[in-house]
Amino acid sequence: MNRMTNLNTAFNPASVAIVGVGPITAGKWYLESLISSGFKGRIYPVHPDGGEMSGMKIYASMKDIPGLVDHVICCIPARFVPQLLRDCAEKGVKVVSLFTSGFSETGTDEGRQLEMDIVRLAQASGTRLIGPNCMGVYSPRVGFSFVADFPREAGGVSLVCQSGGNTIYFVRLAAERGIRFSKVISYGNACDVNESDLFEYLTEDTETDLVAAYIEGVKDGERLRQVLSKLASSKPVIVLKGGSTAFGARTAASHTGSLSGSDQVWTSLLEQAGAIRVHTLEELVDMAVTFRFLPLPKGRKVAMVGGGGGASVMATDACAANGFTLPVIPQTLSYRIRGFLDSEAGLILTNPIELNMFPEATYNIARHFLVYEGFDLMMANCVFGQHPWAIFDVWFDSFCDTILKVHKEVDKPIAVVLDSALTDQEKHFDALRRRYCHAELPIYYSMSNGCRAIDRFLRYHGKRLAMQDGW
Amino acid sequence: MNRMTNLNTAFNPASVAIVGVGPITAGKWYLESLISSGFKGRIYPVHPDGGEMSGMKIYASMKDIPGLVDHVICCIPARFVPQLLRDCAEKGVKVVSLFTSGFSETGTDEGRQLEMDIVRLAQASGTRLIGPNCMGVYSPRVGFSFVADFPREAGGVSLVCQSGGNTIYFVRLAAERGIRFSKVISYGNACDVNESDLFEYLTEDTETDLVAAYIEGVKDGERLRQVLSKLASSKPVIVLKGGSTAFGARTAASHTGSLSGSDQVWTSLLEQAGAIRVHTLEELVDMAVTFRFLPLPKGRKVAMVGGGGGASVMATDACAANGFTLPVIPQTLSYRIRGFLDSEAGLILTNPIELNMFPEATYNIARHFLVYEGFDLMMANCVFGQHPWAIFDVWFDSFCDTILKVHKEVDKPIAVVLDSALTDQEKHFDALRRRYCHAELPIYYSMSNGCRAIDRFLRYHGKRLAMQDGW
Repeated sequence: MNRMTNLNTAFNPASVAIVGVGPITAGKWYLESLISSGFKGRIYPVHPDGGEMSGMKIYASMKDIPGLVDHVICCIPARFVPQLLRDCAEKGVKVVSLFTSGFSETGTDEGRQLEMDIVRLAQASGTRLIGPNCMGVYSPRVGFSFVADFPREAGGVSLVCQSGGNTIYFVRLAAERGIRFSKVISYGNACDVNESDLFEYLTEDTETDLVAAYIEGVKDGERLRQVLSKLASSKPVIVLKGGSTAFGARTAASHTGSLSGSDQVWTSLLEQAGAIRVHTLEELVDMAVTFRFLPLPKGRKVAMVGGGGGASVMATDACAANGFTLPVIPQTLSYRIRGFLDSEAGLILTNPIELNMFPEATYNIARHFLVYEGFDLMMANCVFGQHPWAIFDVWFDSFCDTILKVHKEVDKPIAVVLDSALTDQEKHFDALRRRYCHAELPIYYSMSNGCRAIDRFLRYHGKRLAMQDGW
Repeated sequence: MNRMTNLNTAFNPASVAIVGVGPITAGKWYLESLISSGFKGRIYPVHPDGGEMSGMKIYASMKDIPGLVDHVICCIPARFVPQLLRDCAEKGVKVVSLFTSGFSETGTDEGRQLEMDIVRLAQASGTRLIGPNCMGVYSPRVGFSFVADFPREAGGVSLVCQSGGNTIYFVRLAAERGIRFSKVISYGNACDVNESDLFEYLTEDTETDLVAAYIEGVKDGERLRQVLSKLASSKPVIVLKGGSTAFGARTAASHTGSLSGSDQVWTSLLEQAGAIRVHTLEELVDMAVTFRFLPLPKGRKVAMVGGGGGASVMATDACAANGFTLPVIPQTLSYRIRGFLDSEAGLILTNPIELNMFPEATYNIARHFLVYEGFDLMMANCVFGQHPWAIFDVWFDSFCDTILKVHKEVDKPIAVVLDSALTDQEKHFDALRRRYCHAELPIYYSMSNGCRAIDRFLRYHGKRLAMQDGW
């Protein structure tokens, strides 16, 4: 059997069996999630007691399932896994995702031995193993999901993630900012299917435009270097390495049985392969959002709009610290802009431009500012929670409307910063987030984060351009 | 008249006049905010048209006010300010807060001249000027506030802030994390009352335990060095400097007419004075929260609890990157802890300890872990949004309850990280935030932020101890 074909089946199964669907078990929750995610194939719950669950017949064993089974989700205790793999081999199952833990990550000889046993069984039959100690696959094109609230629509971002919790958090964080997914996989201990297999698969996957990854450790560094280089030459790859410190590495070993490796080695490996390295899940989302929603700016000349005064000072500092410039507008344009105002008192009107004012002026000024050819991109600084009185909220809303309006009218990259660490601004924040998402604008949650991501984005493209030019 | 006494009256006025209370004006909103904040003194609205507002008589001029006036809030256009100051001098007003802008920050000769004129007038009469181009004073002990939703209770933190918007955002951010205030002042262009006057005043103020500051520029650097050194030797001072880059400095000049000065000079000035420098408003809040709510840990040995696996790996990395250690617990304790569990599968049980489990076990394990004398402090890592199914939310809640319970029972510093960048987790997040605030636990919004703040806190105390020891 072709091991790569089986990997493809992992993401596109026509039929799934969930083994271990007792009450109050992961199996039951996998089943419920799969049903409510609208899985398009056949679902077979399995448990020795038989019976029914969620209106579906429970099969007593794999052998009792009448049709073919592509993908098995295994939720039974570790000691029963070898027998299940024998049953799966007989049934011609192509891939088994092991939610089950209790293998090499325990650090015990028994755990390591059991993991070696199941790998041997799988290699003999050609069945691919995902995990153990993982959440498995989210593949929205076929409605295959382990969490009910993940988006149903598919997109172009794929995630290769060694942690189940990080997989879930990342998908939700990114989804709230407009990202949709092609293939997402939580692969745990990586006893069979590992990061390199997945990178190789995603290199060829035409439904994937960008790959994000969270990796704790790797067994074959040389192979990773090769496949990652090939992947990164075909599409952007962003990598978050967990276990970058000695204490973190010890924790990674307890988590997924991983050998973290030297952080310096990782730094040079990722750099040489052409992957972008980040250090938090939020940075991972920031990069995905930038690649997905920001048209490539021609340069680093920023038009900053928003307010108020102190927020503009700090936003300018963040911009400058990340290598951007804020050109002053020519006097003719400055006069024109001032012409829209009754009074300039209390407003910064150079660059940044503070847009704390009546709605008509806001739109006219923002539009004139944005079209000026001396700017490569606009940064809209929407800071919640700094307004003393209701009229400022009205002005703030009109400013936010204006950004959406000029985005439609003017062909220039726009990045939006929604800065709110206040829980009592949440409703307002959420409404705006949805509107900007709908308009496919890149959203960041702080000016520093936005500038850092766009800086990396520009450096990535600059490097590729230099390589094309034979540098 | 004593200029310092007048500054004291700025924060403790017995009577306030608000000048310029026309409809749709700042004066009207100041009046409404002051009333709804429960100001304990007399309020006199002033406008040439007279009439009534919010059930109060409007006086046509300062002269018509029957009683004494301590503090005037000025909201009239800049060109009328000199005459107002003459009227205030006659009336014996001690301090005038100028919301009014249109002075040196405009960058025009007229603006600069007008600012010099009002300073001369104020110096002649002894009236102190706050601003212009500022929000003024929030002093909850007397119910004096310019924003209706600021906390009514007073506390020990004072804020000296050159930006009105940053003042408002900071107070709200800090209030949500349990901070209450003594004296807060937005002082804008600093034409008379400046950062040094305020630091001098707060050095003597027994109601202030900690001073936070946002400064864009300063006129007399040598005086600042002296007063800041004196202040910082009596209580912790945390400073955020706006305009730390060339572009930021240009923006600061347009905002408050400030000369930002070289960033290197600021770095060494703050360091020599013994102030803690931060770079964002969130860091400023993080430090205030740490000084206010974290008992000084004896060292850097961290007990990390929370989960899940990937989150624990990244939390450990953040801890280690900030100079903390995560000791392994002795085997006897480890056996004891494992004894509370039916199965260890899928859990990290060294340090960090993952507490994704049934409630009884969570409490027993956390308590045994916390009391172990090898730890100096506990970090509780509460990460929202990484749970696939409802049972994890139940376990998560029990973990959060456990933190509150052991906090009451065990005498050891505990820091809480509430990590949620997801808007759809907001309700859950908000409920927990309130409970931890009520228990007076320090809350941080990411493990990195928390570790960075506690690292600075330990270094601050280490330095002071070294100084006491004559190092």
